[in-house]
Amino acid sequence: MAIEIRKARPADYDGIWEIFSTVIKSGDTYAFDPATTREGMMEYWLTPGMETFAAVEDGKVIGTYYLKPNQVGLGNHTGNCGYMVHPGARGKGLGAMLCGHSIATAKAAGYLGIQFNFVVSTNATAVKLWQKLGFTIIGTTPNGFRHQQLGLVDTYIMYQAL
Amino acid sequence: MAIEIRKARPADYDGIWEIFSTVIKSGDTYAFDPATTREGMMEYWLTPGMETFAAVEDGKVIGTYYLKPNQVGLGNHTGNCGYMVHPGARGKGLGAMLCGHSIATAKAAGYLGIQFNFVVSTNATAVKLWQKLGFTIIGTTPNGFRHQQLGLVDTYIMYQAL
Repeated sequence: MAIEIRKARPADYDGIWEIFSTVIKSGDTYAFDPATTREGMMEYWLTPGMETFAAVEDGKVIGTYYLKPNQVGLGNHTGNCGYMVHPGARGKGLGAMLCGHSIATAKAAGYLGIQFNFVVSTNATAVKLWQKLGFTIIGTTPNGFRHQQLGLVDTYIMYQAL
Repeated sequence: MAIEIRKARPADYDGIWEIFSTVIKSGDTYAFDPATTREGMMEYWLTPGMETFAAVEDGKVIGTYYLKPNQVGLGNHTGNCGYMVHPGARGKGLGAMLCGHSIATAKAAGYLGIQFNFVVSTNATAVKLWQKLGFTIIGTTPNGFRHQQLGLVDTYIMYQAL
């Protein structure tokens, strides 16, 4: 497995869009409206102030994540990340790789912690993975997410000190 | 006390800036960098997608708040608000008035709840006020805020169902 994780370049944006548009379609894991356009993706995933990374294997983008301050100014020492894996690249441990890379990147950049604001509680695989990688549930938003199959479900706030 | 709370108009922006710039100077309650410029204020407090309100007494803006979705897309049924009171208008119960107005506005707009993401834990007056007005602490971010006097202090996530 030769997967390289590096800063996303404009040449990666088509690949990131393929991942983003496919992943959000199910409406069961991300807040992004399943009908989000490519312009919307650029705003949510590749906007100035975010560092966006691409995981590349054999020249194909198979995963992506972003790192940004979770708050402005006096709260900008806590980072925030989002991760997406191409559905065709599941089962390789790529989610854990991306998260591990983000933790190292955030540490090197001087962040004191990483917070996820919106982990869908019914996404048990993700919740377990983040816990395995050191994150703790620090709060629950009641009915935070309109799950496209299940209706309103809670969302978790998760945190890890660095 | 004849205080009117209504949508902010461009003619109010000078008054809102007077409040914003004064309130953030102490660096003990808001994430905004105490050196935030007026352009920064426009982005944080008066950006498209937010509804911003002004509380006006005798033609002077003495308070302001915003209401916006706390998340995009499938999480946009939870609102988020921020409130500021002119230091010269403290003790009138204006914070509670603004919050009450925001709750009614959010309810009317169809929001199912309001979440505060970043309540500085040492700001006991605010925490008590939000609790009195129906909000509950649903989570704590360890060391979320760089308090200008106290150093790193926790921040609370607070929520109220509507």
